[in-house]
Amino acid sequence: MSVLKQLQDIVGAAQVLTGEAMDPYVVDWRGRYRGQALAVVRPASTQEVADVVKVCVSNKTPIVPSGGNTSLCGGATPDDTGRAVVVCLARLNKVRAIDTDNDTMTVEAGCILQAVQEAARGADRLFPLSLAAEGSCTIGGNLATNAGGTQVLRYGNTRDLALGLEVVTAEGEIWHGLRGLRKDNTGYDLRDLFIGSEGTLGIITAATLKLYPLPVAQRTAMLALNTMEDAITVLSRARAGFGASLTGFEVMMGPVLQAVVRLFPQQRLPFEGASAQSPWFALLELSDSESAEHAQGRFEAVLGAAIEDGLVTDAAIAENIAQSKAMWHLRESIPLAEAELGKSIKHDVSIPISSIGRFVQVTNAALQKRFPGIQHIVFGHLGDGNLHYNVARAPNQTEQELLASQYDVYQLVHDSVHAHAGSISAEHGVGQLKRDELTRYKSELELKLMKQIKTALDPQGLMNPGKVLQA
Amino acid sequence: MSVLKQLQDIVGAAQVLTGEAMDPYVVDWRGRYRGQALAVVRPASTQEVADVVKVCVSNKTPIVPSGGNTSLCGGATPDDTGRAVVVCLARLNKVRAIDTDNDTMTVEAGCILQAVQEAARGADRLFPLSLAAEGSCTIGGNLATNAGGTQVLRYGNTRDLALGLEVVTAEGEIWHGLRGLRKDNTGYDLRDLFIGSEGTLGIITAATLKLYPLPVAQRTAMLALNTMEDAITVLSRARAGFGASLTGFEVMMGPVLQAVVRLFPQQRLPFEGASAQSPWFALLELSDSESAEHAQGRFEAVLGAAIEDGLVTDAAIAENIAQSKAMWHLRESIPLAEAELGKSIKHDVSIPISSIGRFVQVTNAALQKRFPGIQHIVFGHLGDGNLHYNVARAPNQTEQELLASQYDVYQLVHDSVHAHAGSISAEHGVGQLKRDELTRYKSELELKLMKQIKTALDPQGLMNPGKVLQA
Repeated sequence: MSVLKQLQDIVGAAQVLTGEAMDPYVVDWRGRYRGQALAVVRPASTQEVADVVKVCVSNKTPIVPSGGNTSLCGGATPDDTGRAVVVCLARLNKVRAIDTDNDTMTVEAGCILQAVQEAARGADRLFPLSLAAEGSCTIGGNLATNAGGTQVLRYGNTRDLALGLEVVTAEGEIWHGLRGLRKDNTGYDLRDLFIGSEGTLGIITAATLKLYPLPVAQRTAMLALNTMEDAITVLSRARAGFGASLTGFEVMMGPVLQAVVRLFPQQRLPFEGASAQSPWFALLELSDSESAEHAQGRFEAVLGAAIEDGLVTDAAIAENIAQSKAMWHLRESIPLAEAELGKSIKHDVSIPISSIGRFVQVTNAALQKRFPGIQHIVFGHLGDGNLHYNVARAPNQTEQELLASQYDVYQLVHDSVHAHAGSISAEHGVGQLKRDELTRYKSELELKLMKQIKTALDPQGLMNPGKVLQA
Repeated sequence: MSVLKQLQDIVGAAQVLTGEAMDPYVVDWRGRYRGQALAVVRPASTQEVADVVKVCVSNKTPIVPSGGNTSLCGGATPDDTGRAVVVCLARLNKVRAIDTDNDTMTVEAGCILQAVQEAARGADRLFPLSLAAEGSCTIGGNLATNAGGTQVLRYGNTRDLALGLEVVTAEGEIWHGLRGLRKDNTGYDLRDLFIGSEGTLGIITAATLKLYPLPVAQRTAMLALNTMEDAITVLSRARAGFGASLTGFEVMMGPVLQAVVRLFPQQRLPFEGASAQSPWFALLELSDSESAEHAQGRFEAVLGAAIEDGLVTDAAIAENIAQSKAMWHLRESIPLAEAELGKSIKHDVSIPISSIGRFVQVTNAALQKRFPGIQHIVFGHLGDGNLHYNVARAPNQTEQELLASQYDVYQLVHDSVHAHAGSISAEHGVGQLKRDELTRYKSELELKLMKQIKTALDPQGLMNPGKVLQA
């Protein structure tokens, strides 16, 4: 019996896609990678996923797990051999349980992140993971890539939000690891090994996640600053002054936000005059367990001192939810503004916070020397040391000229990241995009240990081949 | 050349102990396990550890890593074959770096936990890991066992406090993974695999740890309660009302604290009359980033409401540091009081918080039915779902009779833990003590995955054999 027939027997013929119906699954959403597949299979249960994997394994057919197809690194796109089966988890989309006394919820991998957030809110709880793609990415993909986002400063990455997993292994067995425990020291940390492994060791089918109390009030502030160093000092003071109430600390180059308001005139900076022309801006979010007035008072005390000490040149505290949303909207419009400016070369890097100022100075200077006039687009989650350090063409350059230098730019920036003890993938994962780059920056020993684990858990090398590690 | 001679060449003859000099290293501190060793080696650097491992590997000599020898599960005690070399990490005790801007510190494995806390405090930062053995346990042992303690509710287990590791692998190579990054998604999570593996996959020689701002003020309160269910409701309200300022939530059976003040008359409960006879007590700690007055006000608001609603029968808020220390001293005296009461059978378990009340009821009843008159000693970190669920002899029983039923008691309690979706080792690890029990509660698949990883990273099975997994 053919592989296709066997797969149809498991999930039903309607859920085995071939030909053009596969198109949305074989191209990544940025359109950088296009692959081919034998079929796209859409199982509806963990048992069906396990049965699909068993069929693939017995036919030596590669398996590419797929969620919301929002990977920025081609992590869910098959290669061009056409041999792989794409296993789409979208139909595993049930919230299985919410336990408010235990502050946990158990959800299936195909749940859209926003649906998970809303289910938690419906139970008067917060599921804090929040990122730009939340309307279409799935929690399974978030787990597979250990996604980050804007709340990491307070709540950690996806890994920190997961207590238990259900996983279909590379042999098609089901690991029932859906524990809702804050403490469990009974053996090796399989959970964290599967999280972030990008589908190369097994398929995450469900997870038990941590919930938190909803904040009583949130307050947002935007600051104008002269230097990145000042932003780092303000971050340190904000951590001390607000404790864990500080749930967001974003930093943005002035010219980047100025481009946002130039391109989208319906948006406005909350500053006038010189402050609006500031070289740097920061966006702070305070989540308070008391009241809006209390949050406001805290902001005024800490930010007032920072202004007095000359660390902050101007500050605007949102007075209502609309103003707060407008501030976040400025931040979230940066990628759109980037797109308006034409193609750019993007880096998702992290650096120890103590070295970020120097990293930006040194790297900007090195880029200018090598590519005079190139434009810097620097913003990111300063509280996590995570910068989106992007580069747009010089005024006298064409897009083609910029893109022709893409790999030289990557190498210059990533070499600088490495020299500053940073990571070349902070929150987007490796996928295909950075797989080969990784061999430049990881030690041979670390790559060897990773390969030993890969071989131990996926001896035939069928799970998402060519992602993370070279085949 | 003999193994001993080779080891002496690496660390110097004075640091290779044999004969009686090995005594402190071959018995665990509770005196439950006594092993034998070929030698105890005390390397002074990571390179020396690596060289020692290489010598052992080439001679097929088992290796038992040792820190402060405070394992409660015999995790650092060699078996009785006398073939193993104990590798004591105590001389790797340098604080290598503190980076206050990045809020990280890098310490060697042999640093005493208390020294790590003090080094952080000296830099005006908090390293929050805190547990009873902190004056003698080492951070390497804390990492190897993923130790818990009293601050987990807010700051997590040791795993959550580590950003990077340096590890000597089972082949004697050095993995330089001392990253100080909050976000790093570049491959498999080797860090969390080594953490909690109890020296069975490699030897942790150093770690980069997270630091936090010191709280501006701390306030402690003790509550008298009628039931465990009420304690759970108060926990939920405290989490909502205090947010992340809630850094401790301990629960204790009334008769246990009453035994403490009976046995140690210099200690006193902060209650009089009926409240002092309460069936349950809770200990709360609030760490405030504003002021002592603010913490006091928050306590009064949330606890006042809990009293009005009948959830709490009485509450005492410590008015100064001495009173606060006295409350914690009551809690910390429970193990000493237990020892005064004679030998007890101890369980370190975790349960989803929503099931803890039922677990205690059902398990107490089952124990009473099977062992009439047996005494319950129940206390623990309710905020983490972690109970120390211990049992002392019935009045008409001798210690010998109690201990004769030890394995039946283990099985009854652990079966109940398992039936309530809990863990039989919350924060103490597996070691030798629970290695065989584990096979009763872990699925065959999970044990198989663990063995596959063990074989991949330690193919000769020389790293701490007989711990965690059966040899």
